[in-house]
Amino acid sequence: MDVKTAREKLSGFQKKAAAYLHALELLNFDGQTSAPRGAASTRAETMAVLSGELYALSTSEETVEVLSFLESVSNELTAEENRIVYLLQKDSKKIAKIPLDLYVAYRAQVVRSGDVWHRAKESSEYALFSPELEKIFEMTKEIAGYVEPGSDPYDFCLHEYEEGLNSDKLDSFFGTLREKISPLLQAVSNSAPLDNGIRKGCFPEPDQAKLSRYLMDVIGLDTEHVALSTTEHPFTVSLGSHLDERITTHYYEDDFASSMYSVIHEGGHALYETGCNDRYVFTVLDGGTSMSIHESQSRFYENIIGRSRAFCSLVFPKLCEIFPEQMKGYGADDLYLAVNRVEPSLIRTEADEVTYCFHIMIRYELEKRLMHGELTVKDLPQEWNRLYREYLGVEVPNDKEGVLQDTHWSGGMIGYFPSYALGNAYGAQFFREMKKEVDVEKCILSGDLGRINEWNRKNIWQYGKLYTPDELIRRVTGGAFDPSVYADYLTEKYGEIYGL
Amino acid sequence: MDVKTAREKLSGFQKKAAAYLHALELLNFDGQTSAPRGAASTRAETMAVLSGELYALSTSEETVEVLSFLESVSNELTAEENRIVYLLQKDSKKIAKIPLDLYVAYRAQVVRSGDVWHRAKESSEYALFSPELEKIFEMTKEIAGYVEPGSDPYDFCLHEYEEGLNSDKLDSFFGTLREKISPLLQAVSNSAPLDNGIRKGCFPEPDQAKLSRYLMDVIGLDTEHVALSTTEHPFTVSLGSHLDERITTHYYEDDFASSMYSVIHEGGHALYETGCNDRYVFTVLDGGTSMSIHESQSRFYENIIGRSRAFCSLVFPKLCEIFPEQMKGYGADDLYLAVNRVEPSLIRTEADEVTYCFHIMIRYELEKRLMHGELTVKDLPQEWNRLYREYLGVEVPNDKEGVLQDTHWSGGMIGYFPSYALGNAYGAQFFREMKKEVDVEKCILSGDLGRINEWNRKNIWQYGKLYTPDELIRRVTGGAFDPSVYADYLTEKYGEIYGL
Repeated sequence: MDVKTAREKLSGFQKKAAAYLHALELLNFDGQTSAPRGAASTRAETMAVLSGELYALSTSEETVEVLSFLESVSNELTAEENRIVYLLQKDSKKIAKIPLDLYVAYRAQVVRSGDVWHRAKESSEYALFSPELEKIFEMTKEIAGYVEPGSDPYDFCLHEYEEGLNSDKLDSFFGTLREKISPLLQAVSNSAPLDNGIRKGCFPEPDQAKLSRYLMDVIGLDTEHVALSTTEHPFTVSLGSHLDERITTHYYEDDFASSMYSVIHEGGHALYETGCNDRYVFTVLDGGTSMSIHESQSRFYENIIGRSRAFCSLVFPKLCEIFPEQMKGYGADDLYLAVNRVEPSLIRTEADEVTYCFHIMIRYELEKRLMHGELTVKDLPQEWNRLYREYLGVEVPNDKEGVLQDTHWSGGMIGYFPSYALGNAYGAQFFREMKKEVDVEKCILSGDLGRINEWNRKNIWQYGKLYTPDELIRRVTGGAFDPSVYADYLTEKYGEIYGL
Repeated sequence: MDVKTAREKLSGFQKKAAAYLHALELLNFDGQTSAPRGAASTRAETMAVLSGELYALSTSEETVEVLSFLESVSNELTAEENRIVYLLQKDSKKIAKIPLDLYVAYRAQVVRSGDVWHRAKESSEYALFSPELEKIFEMTKEIAGYVEPGSDPYDFCLHEYEEGLNSDKLDSFFGTLREKISPLLQAVSNSAPLDNGIRKGCFPEPDQAKLSRYLMDVIGLDTEHVALSTTEHPFTVSLGSHLDERITTHYYEDDFASSMYSVIHEGGHALYETGCNDRYVFTVLDGGTSMSIHESQSRFYENIIGRSRAFCSLVFPKLCEIFPEQMKGYGADDLYLAVNRVEPSLIRTEADEVTYCFHIMIRYELEKRLMHGELTVKDLPQEWNRLYREYLGVEVPNDKEGVLQDTHWSGGMIGYFPSYALGNAYGAQFFREMKKEVDVEKCILSGDLGRINEWNRKNIWQYGKLYTPDELIRRVTGGAFDPSVYADYLTEKYGEIYGL
């Protein structure tokens, strides 16, 4: 084989793999947006076939041969090509260790359990979901056992979402956070609660949809490449390439701020994806480098930008235009206080910045123990409820608002939750760097986030998967990951708001 | 090879093919419902890859071998299996004659031209669409030339949608229709026009959505397996199996009847599909046997049921509930007259039953001449407008309401339009048979279409693609196709309404 031929084969392989992934992601997206419920069995069948084909493609003799050859001539390749070869080889080797039957059965199981989770959540019936969740955890352990025999199966999961992450690092990370944020939460809890009356009322869905379109425009999303849908649980997915991004939201007619911050959060994910170098389309470098870096962007737009005083000033006139009756008697400052009200609560996606990490710690602890066999799926709701009492002091009235609230586990996303907390912390570190070059507040007040987005594009987005999360953090900040920056950000912001 | 092995391979092949088709149809559906515009290039790329894989699968040595073997042992197979082998072999032989490059390029072209058609229709710019349409016609001729060299390329197209159909048969069919319906249209045109004030007003989309849900329920759709979306142009598609049906509608806030009859029409398609024998899932027998038989069902529900006096009586109270202000001063009979008002007009999907076939004849004549090289794509709008003047006496003010109105050609569906007219005629013949066993009017008035649906399921739906359209018509009616039944139905119905 010569380098030219191998390069062509590599490109062909990546295009084919991108097409299969596109179809698989679209089937999943469709299942959560438009599909009738009775379609789940057909969808599972199709996903099993397509993932079987992807398996065959990723592990074929030809693929393995091309990748090995390219690895052997690494000095003739660009840095981008070497990174592509590394990522593909890692993936191909991983997949080859999983028996085909298990790989395909797992994809089908994920569809089934997603379907059952929807039904179970609606009726708040954990018993319905429990057997499916058990299968998910069992199969995940089985896969971990094949890919990294003898290793900690939960570390395998963490590694899937963040190269190099393990539970030792997370124990230390969450330890630091808890140590720094607990006193803040305690102090805030002793203060008078902020008024959030402005959020309450009746906000019809079509009006909220107008607000969504406005927000997408304000944060600088290119609607030629980003579309919004509604789902039970908001998410973002890239379909086939970063030229096709979907974000979703969920409208609650009694609180406009829920969807408002979902749109900004998911919009942050979509900004990261669409900001990727266009040359990376149909290569494995396309997209974001890890879910934590992804969350650093979504949580940055949602909180650091979206929950800033400047952003509330900017958006308030639009709120008055869309909801003239409901906004009567309120001002921009009421909005700022309402969306920053700290209050231990049940639902993660609705949580304020201070309590948010506790929601993650609960999930982290539970999934770690489940993966280590120290907790059974059957006992999960009790433990969930107990930890909510212990960490946040709230009573969980039912499983719908408890253990059934998130879609992640039903979709096989074990090890994902820590990404949110890491993302918060990474985002604060990036923000500190950004402020050295950009007058962020002035930008927001002007209604044009162009310079903010440009900074992110230049420093983070354009690189796709070229750098590992660690490398990226070092490039951007000139140093290592430091969670105290995030704790300091929270302490300063909420100290000011609550007058501590 | 033994029969058992061949049967297993046949089943595996069909499952795989169903999965590819599922993904391809879903990509298309998504393009028309949720996708952002800038996603078209990525979608085209993915569809090219997946259709290339489907091509390879359909024409592989193994597939050909299995099908030939099964053909050679036809006496050991069931009638269903023999039909499956026949249909797959026909398809495999056809595809094998088309060069892979052309096959894949055509799939990609269809995505591109669909995308451009959307933009062109919005701005009523035929010049934008014309080069894409030209490619569609050229590629279709090229494909016809490969598959049936020396034959009439338009007959090849017709045959794609209806086994055994050709333009001689259609010339005769449309001749009969024209001869019988022209005098009726003439007589109606000389009568006083019916009042359609009840349709006019402002009907907000969320209210119309309520009406859609009601109608889906009334006609007996199982929403566990049928979902409704909105698109520019209503359609129905089956995704992966008849357990996952999607229908779409388009809401016009100034006329509730447009979406109302779209929902019933597309609902008729979905009833046909979901009524198929469940054993046919993931086989090539799943679905409807031809597009004309499909239209016989959709047009039956839309017109014979939906535009009947009984159905208007049934639905009117619901309309009063959803649109209390707008319905003031009107009664069920006003609805009946308004939805049966005969009036030559511009838009096919909005046409009444009497003028409808003329819209089809125009498209039939134009696509036949385009495929025969007797008309250029460039000259198409002029000819379109001339024929609307000649057949219907209406002036086409712009291409949006003229040649750009339908999505079919942009999607490569040349030869489809005659299905609508044939469907009308088949439906009338089936209706005559149904009335011998079912008191249709009583059924409708009772609000339970169960017995009507049961008759269709027993006689038509359950068989999927087991019988050819001709065989099905003979089985149901005991005789051959006879278009005069449809002409008689129209003459009787509109004679009564207009007092002729």
